[in-house]
Amino acid sequence: MPTILGQNQYGKAENRVVKITRDGDTHHIKDLNVSVALSGEMDEVHLTGSNANVLPTDTTKNTVYAFAKEYGIESAEQFGIHLARHFVNSQDPIHQARIRIEEYSWERIETSEANSKFIGSDDVKHSFVRKGQETRVSEITYNGSEWQVISGLKDLVVMNSTNSEFWGYIKDKYTTLQEAYDRILATQVSGRWRFNWTDDEQRMPNWERSYEQTKKHMLEAFAETYSLSLQQTLYQMGSRIINNRAEIDEVRFSLPNKHHFLVDLEPFGLKNDNEVYFAADRPYGLIEATILRDGVEPKIPVDMTNL
Amino acid sequence: MPTILGQNQYGKAENRVVKITRDGDTHHIKDLNVSVALSGEMDEVHLTGSNANVLPTDTTKNTVYAFAKEYGIESAEQFGIHLARHFVNSQDPIHQARIRIEEYSWERIETSEANSKFIGSDDVKHSFVRKGQETRVSEITYNGSEWQVISGLKDLVVMNSTNSEFWGYIKDKYTTLQEAYDRILATQVSGRWRFNWTDDEQRMPNWERSYEQTKKHMLEAFAETYSLSLQQTLYQMGSRIINNRAEIDEVRFSLPNKHHFLVDLEPFGLKNDNEVYFAADRPYGLIEATILRDGVEPKIPVDMTNL
Amino acid sequence: MPTILGQNQYGKAENRVVKITRDGDTHHIKDLNVSVALSGEMDEVHLTGSNANVLPTDTTKNTVYAFAKEYGIESAEQFGIHLARHFVNSQDPIHQARIRIEEYSWERIETSEANSKFIGSDDVKHSFVRKGQETRVSEITYNGSEWQVISGLKDLVVMNSTNSEFWGYIKDKYTTLQEAYDRILATQVSGRWRFNWTDDEQRMPNWERSYEQTKKHMLEAFAETYSLSLQQTLYQMGSRIINNRAEIDEVRFSLPNKHHFLVDLEPFGLKNDNEVYFAADRPYGLIEATILRDGVEPKIPVDMTNL
Amino acid sequence: MPTILGQNQYGKAENRVVKITRDGDTHHIKDLNVSVALSGEMDEVHLTGSNANVLPTDTTKNTVYAFAKEYGIESAEQFGIHLARHFVNSQDPIHQARIRIEEYSWERIETSEANSKFIGSDDVKHSFVRKGQETRVSEITYNGSEWQVISGLKDLVVMNSTNSEFWGYIKDKYTTLQEAYDRILATQVSGRWRFNWTDDEQRMPNWERSYEQTKKHMLEAFAETYSLSLQQTLYQMGSRIINNRAEIDEVRFSLPNKHHFLVDLEPFGLKNDNEVYFAADRPYGLIEATILRDGVEPKIPVDMTNL
Repeated sequence: MPTILGQNQYGKAENRVVKITRDGDTHHIKDLNVSVALSGEMDEVHLTGSNANVLPTDTTKNTVYAFAKEYGIESAEQFGIHLARHFVNSQDPIHQARIRIEEYSWERIETSEANSKFIGSDDVKHSFVRKGQETRVSEITYNGSEWQVISGLKDLVVMNSTNSEFWGYIKDKYTTLQEAYDRILATQVSGRWRFNWTDDEQRMPNWERSYEQTKKHMLEAFAETYSLSLQQTLYQMGSRIINNRAEIDEVRFSLPNKHHFLVDLEPFGLKNDNEVYFAADRPYGLIEATILRDGVEPKIPVDMTNL
Repeated sequence: MPTILGQNQYGKAENRVVKITRDGDTHHIKDLNVSVALSGEMDEVHLTGSNANVLPTDTTKNTVYAFAKEYGIESAEQFGIHLARHFVNSQDPIHQARIRIEEYSWERIETSEANSKFIGSDDVKHSFVRKGQETRVSEITYNGSEWQVISGLKDLVVMNSTNSEFWGYIKDKYTTLQEAYDRILATQVSGRWRFNWTDDEQRMPNWERSYEQTKKHMLEAFAETYSLSLQQTLYQMGSRIINNRAEIDEVRFSLPNKHHFLVDLEPFGLKNDNEVYFAADRPYGLIEATILRDGVEPKIPVDMTNL
Repeated sequence: MPTILGQNQYGKAENRVVKITRDGDTHHIKDLNVSVALSGEMDEVHLTGSNANVLPTDTTKNTVYAFAKEYGIESAEQFGIHLARHFVNSQDPIHQARIRIEEYSWERIETSEANSKFIGSDDVKHSFVRKGQETRVSEITYNGSEWQVISGLKDLVVMNSTNSEFWGYIKDKYTTLQEAYDRILATQVSGRWRFNWTDDEQRMPNWERSYEQTKKHMLEAFAETYSLSLQQTLYQMGSRIINNRAEIDEVRFSLPNKHHFLVDLEPFGLKNDNEVYFAADRPYGLIEATILRDGVEPKIPVDMTNL
Repeated sequence: MPTILGQNQYGKAENRVVKITRDGDTHHIKDLNVSVALSGEMDEVHLTGSNANVLPTDTTKNTVYAFAKEYGIESAEQFGIHLARHFVNSQDPIHQARIRIEEYSWERIETSEANSKFIGSDDVKHSFVRKGQETRVSEITYNGSEWQVISGLKDLVVMNSTNSEFWGYIKDKYTTLQEAYDRILATQVSGRWRFNWTDDEQRMPNWERSYEQTKKHMLEAFAETYSLSLQQTLYQMGSRIINNRAEIDEVRFSLPNKHHFLVDLEPFGLKNDNEVYFAADRPYGLIEATILRDGVEPKIPVDMTNL
């Protein structure tokens, strides 16, 4: 046979699991979208259709829901670690498991004192509104001996309304762009960061605190960088994370330059003093880069942060 | 000619305008998506293609950007009022203008004291992150004498993790549903409310405060209602608004019942004590209703809040 | 109580039903997305939460699937008629049923003679590829005595690469648009047409043939109209339907003007002789109108064809 | 500095270019979405913000439109080759260019003879309707000496209504799935195939014919495979391409298993003889694999075909 089988994986994608934890009348919520991908001795199912080595994708789905009960969901990363370990350790033909998780965050609905008569003396502790800002993402991979955890976020839209310039670039025969000395810089952040935790013997990071701090450093770097190019801002965002979070060795960003064009109001006898902008959709500049701790090998795939 | 022209309207849709207001180093942002629809003496353009009565859609776009400079954007509603008045009053053939606006809200990126050395002694006041929760919407219609303002929101996802039941319903030969005495109630709110401000002689509502308070009352009603059906919750949300906001006479909601099904874990020897749920996509229950101040005629179109 | 209940409806939305009909080895497929909305004596469920008059949305879902077996799916319209009649006639508190259906069409995968050895002497008759062009839509409403059927389509993208002009329009102080004497005209058609079949005593239209012919006439009108404005083209599309299809009394279109801007290549020493265009996303002109058979009352809601 | 810069690239994404070619009254259309990504000596722009080595993304956009005029668009692949060669050869700091293209296909609107009187004696040859089926994709990469061309498609939805089974799989404590001996098999194909053309000295493939034939072989393999697992079908689709198209060395598919669940109609006294299905959204099985010509190294990134 002239064709051979290369890399392959399978599993159930986008299992939407919501876990409610009850602390008396106060409820807590975890809302995840979990995708399982398994690899191993899978030649036969491709070549002959024999499913003897195949744990059904339906079973991987059931496992997600059962584990939400058996282990709870302390964090997306911890939950993915339980799942990945289970699939690799429990089935001989499965040599690697990759769990991808999206997490949607919720905040409590605050009810006012004035209305407390409707519900007795206490506030409602079981009502939530989805925050709706970024989607938190995580990927946990386990091959039976080594872990790789990549976390991050997507769809976080940020803007600086000043402190951004763009000039001094190459000008060829197709260049018409005017240099800019005060422009809006806006982007929709898709970022991933890889942890240097790889071994059960190592102390595990505090995944929740790590996420919160990493997001904070990233946003501060975006806000505080006087930007001569989006590349410079991206590099600052990445290096700020590496420099402040010892548990992270590699960061990759995919940053679309969400162009805000100053509208020409002169035809109407008006001066536009960096006030009125047209927010464009397409095309957009797209800036992508990896930032690494010195001496570290890159492992985040270039195509992982694609829009 | 056996065919005649009925209701018609035209204009430029989805003009994305971002307005930066500078108060020293502190910037403020308004981020709108503005759609213009004009009606009037438009028989000729349909029948013969004569554009003599047609103000180009491109001109309506230019007007949006020029007015952002000339009038600023105090609120979406106020901005729409300026635009609608202009189109009707400045062009004889145009008898009615309808302005629809979506508004995206932003909050400031907080920068920490520890990092203040990067930028001098003060915090950054020109950096923003998009809130990303609901989209605020507004529709302003003017016919030369009377105003109609309908505001609202969409894509606000809320959940009660308890205090919801569903039982006592009709059971016909196609009914298999089990009664529920403690279920999750979740929905993605699409709501519209109509103001009783219709005349330039009346005092205009404070549009920003009205929105904030209306959203608050709506969320409180959702949180505080012990629900026997989503219809009951919807009615509470609407009547709470009518009862608390004198400027609003009519409310319409379109509430998809975002089903969270309790997962059957018994096959795995586990008990699911209202802890682990599957969040389903389709199909979903869809509950829609109008709530009115007594004595008021309904005017919000049934199809306006469609998903 | 100072608030009252206005128009309301409820039901299960987006029931995805696929029906396979087997004619020996030749299979046929119908692929629908069915949404049910019921109205009637529903005050109690809103006011007190009593579900005594409520047929559960889950039951309406079950009915969709059961009816696919009991009646088959001859056409979306005929299927909707079965459903609407059932809900109104079988439950006293339900006075009106509205069934909305989206239909996705499929075509057969053609297998070549050369490959026929793989499967015996005959072609495969159970393999399909989704056509993916327009989505066909239908709305059937029944109140116990009268029918209203509105059919149509959405997401059909069409383009004329010439025979379109735009000039002779109003020029005010905000007008900068240049007149155009040869431009691209492109739109994404959202159309609805209402049938004059309203009574079980009348002969029912052939829904499938009607759809096919109506789409044909609409496309021909788009192609054959030398256009001085998109309004003129819209009117031709609508009146061509009214004039050729006696079963249809009213048509409404919502036509976004998908702008294709001629790119200025002069800075690069190139002449752009109506060859190279930038296809823009937002903003877009939006042209909407109803065309009626003379003497007929309009009934298609203005907001039904919204984008 | 403890952080270093890893892989990085930048450019203008999603340039929407439509090219009309006029052959007398008969027009032809090419409709592309072109994304440019450039790499090279880009340390400075990340570290200091110096743009001295940066060709602006705006210039890469201009080049796309200028080249549509200068070279025409014979095929997406050929157009991408012109662009990639230009960027690498014309700017010293740019060492690699990657051009990604989506192509949307159109077909002519057929106008009937009966209506030919509207437009003279000939059919309209400038009117098009978007086919709307799959989106054709292509990626062209050039590093100054070697080419890599990966083409493919996405969003092609296919279904077999029989000739699919699934049984004989692993059953662990979380397995509840029943074996199936006659099920629907449906998927939304995302596929990529890599050409062995890498050198300007080699004869270039006929890109248009290659695409057409590759799609045909893929569809035939889907239709003609009696499937015991989606993996088996995937492998047949890939090997059929490798075996029939000498210009292609590697294929990768990402195939979501679009589940169609047989609806249980027994509660309603009905038998469902593989007739009525519920088409589910999430979760879905996801089957991904690479198929290679024997002896060839895989180069299509695992994450390139992600959903």
